[in-house]
Amino acid sequence: MRILVLGGDGFCGWPTVLHLATRGHTVAIVDNLIRRQWDIELGTHSITPIAPITERIATWQALTGQAIPFYDGDLQDYDFVSKVFREFQPESIVHFAEQRSAPYSMIDRAHAVFTQVNNIVGTLNVLYAIREFTPDAHLVKLGTMGEYGTPNIDIEEGYLEIEHNGRRDVMIYPKNPPSFYHLSKVHDSHNIFFACRIWGLRATDLNQGIVYNVVTDECERDARLWNRYDYDGVFGTALNRFCAEAVSGYPLTVHGKGGQTRGFIDIRDTVRCIELAALNPAEPGEMRVYNQFTEQWSVLQLAELVQRVAREMGMAVEMSHVENPRVEREEHYYQAKHTKLIDLGLEPHLLTDETIRVLLEKAAAHRDRINTADFPALVRWK
Amino acid sequence: MRILVLGGDGFCGWPTVLHLATRGHTVAIVDNLIRRQWDIELGTHSITPIAPITERIATWQALTGQAIPFYDGDLQDYDFVSKVFREFQPESIVHFAEQRSAPYSMIDRAHAVFTQVNNIVGTLNVLYAIREFTPDAHLVKLGTMGEYGTPNIDIEEGYLEIEHNGRRDVMIYPKNPPSFYHLSKVHDSHNIFFACRIWGLRATDLNQGIVYNVVTDECERDARLWNRYDYDGVFGTALNRFCAEAVSGYPLTVHGKGGQTRGFIDIRDTVRCIELAALNPAEPGEMRVYNQFTEQWSVLQLAELVQRVAREMGMAVEMSHVENPRVEREEHYYQAKHTKLIDLGLEPHLLTDETIRVLLEKAAAHRDRINTADFPALVRWK
Repeated sequence: MRILVLGGDGFCGWPTVLHLATRGHTVAIVDNLIRRQWDIELGTHSITPIAPITERIATWQALTGQAIPFYDGDLQDYDFVSKVFREFQPESIVHFAEQRSAPYSMIDRAHAVFTQVNNIVGTLNVLYAIREFTPDAHLVKLGTMGEYGTPNIDIEEGYLEIEHNGRRDVMIYPKNPPSFYHLSKVHDSHNIFFACRIWGLRATDLNQGIVYNVVTDECERDARLWNRYDYDGVFGTALNRFCAEAVSGYPLTVHGKGGQTRGFIDIRDTVRCIELAALNPAEPGEMRVYNQFTEQWSVLQLAELVQRVAREMGMAVEMSHVENPRVEREEHYYQAKHTKLIDLGLEPHLLTDETIRVLLEKAAAHRDRINTADFPALVRWK
Repeated sequence: MRILVLGGDGFCGWPTVLHLATRGHTVAIVDNLIRRQWDIELGTHSITPIAPITERIATWQALTGQAIPFYDGDLQDYDFVSKVFREFQPESIVHFAEQRSAPYSMIDRAHAVFTQVNNIVGTLNVLYAIREFTPDAHLVKLGTMGEYGTPNIDIEEGYLEIEHNGRRDVMIYPKNPPSFYHLSKVHDSHNIFFACRIWGLRATDLNQGIVYNVVTDECERDARLWNRYDYDGVFGTALNRFCAEAVSGYPLTVHGKGGQTRGFIDIRDTVRCIELAALNPAEPGEMRVYNQFTEQWSVLQLAELVQRVAREMGMAVEMSHVENPRVEREEHYYQAKHTKLIDLGLEPHLLTDETIRVLLEKAAAHRDRINTADFPALVRWK
């Protein structure tokens, strides 16, 4: 299958590209490399040293003989998008190419506006390009479990059958997201649903949980293929950041009570889910929605897990309940469905001590690249 | 009350400004006059000749002694927005300043992107300005009944109590809007709800129905105060356009079967609703939602009504079921609540033959300004 990966240089995008290539698909990357620029803006970097995109691609070609075309440009530029679609003629478009950090979107007004415009306009342009150049192609779009917020009822996969005053309808699941970033994904979902409905496009909206781990078989084949490993207060996410803190002798920073419960997924399952979604395209006119995570954890549970494994490895690890920079419930009901990807054949990697050990070792091997001043989540919601 | 009217030169904005001024409020206008530019772009104009904004304001001051400050600028420019908020220090902000035509948003990709960016960024900037300069001020935001689409269950006012698997929550009413314009209002509503929740802002989201009539007491005081009267296929809406067609000997253009049912409101009630909303601000942290319409009509019912009244006035009026340029259900369930503004004291102007007669006379008086080539709705959704 000809698969175009938008955002193919990023944390989820790059391992997905290599996984899809290994599975025999013809893959091309679109990226404007802005994720690397945000590290420069924030004065931080991945724990793992990551090679330039050209070196990543050249290394892969040297190892496997597979060429991966790279289109360097911005999805907000429709001339560029048009050129890519005309040239590559994708059958499936995997769309990771969005600003994906909630704290980044909450830095200030300019970052909120940038996040929403970048994500919404990029996705609108992709929808118009599919319609214009490859109307039968299938859009596999990364959303987020954060779109749902933390409702007091069970979270279904995208839609909810509602009975009201004796009548029934199946409706888009009502959304209550916790940041301007998460809101941008809600906006995207509504736009995509509409484009499917009026133009007959095919789309799958993947509401992904929080991704942990950085290691995939393909990325480990050569140091120049390594994936990025974010630990800073803006782009670092719960489990990976805890591992970085543990190896640095820094207390694990739990926001508030830590009762915040979320869906989590191993990056080795992310890449599999993407292929499953691509291989099972939605029907024309349909926007499928899958909740792409494998387990629910509270933040405190994860911190305790990392603490235990790190202590077993001989590290002295403390825990610190820091003031929560976000506005969110710290104790709440949370029960989210996630059966559709399992039905398609996903065999989940559930979180094991071994995975945490690998992450701790990976961080420890590059401890000199960790700046503990980057740990605190300084962006405040209020 | 100090009320800032964003979009105060437009079809709803201008009569609202005069109504609020007459009721003793201190009113200022923000507008970038782009609505007049869209007429130029589309090669059309209001049936009524409308005076330049400076002449409108000067005329009002000559008649009443009331000065209405005018800020000429774009809400996408935060420096401009900041200056306005710092100077005027509004207690209430009435926000009409959005691209409000569904067909305009569906012309092509560029118009879809423009509509969403213009509306979303303008509203984000207003939210940030309220937070920064007047955190206790109340945002009165114009949404649209179109946000809801045509669900098979009753439409409530903004929120829906949902029971699911034995648990309950009150959630944002699920949205299924019919154009990229209507989608922009859904995006706004989600952004505003979030800003209220995390910053404690006050907002009222007015999901307005289709506005008919152009005549208010204040606008009729002088020809230089006249409101605009749109009839073209892009900005003209159902009832007003039918009246323009009737006086031009053009068949009333019903899209498809005409069973599309919507909420409608007289512009004399629009201006009253705005004052009622402003005088009854939401609590800090609350986004109130009112459905701002007074009656439900199907498009076909309205056409038949205009036909009858026009025939009684001696006009020969035919009706034509033209191919529907939109993707929408032409027969569907529709039952939308609209009690909250009534509870606040709104006494509706229900649609009468007399109102239609006034509209027909107003159009007939300027028949020479109507170009029948502008009637057809040429923008196709597919």
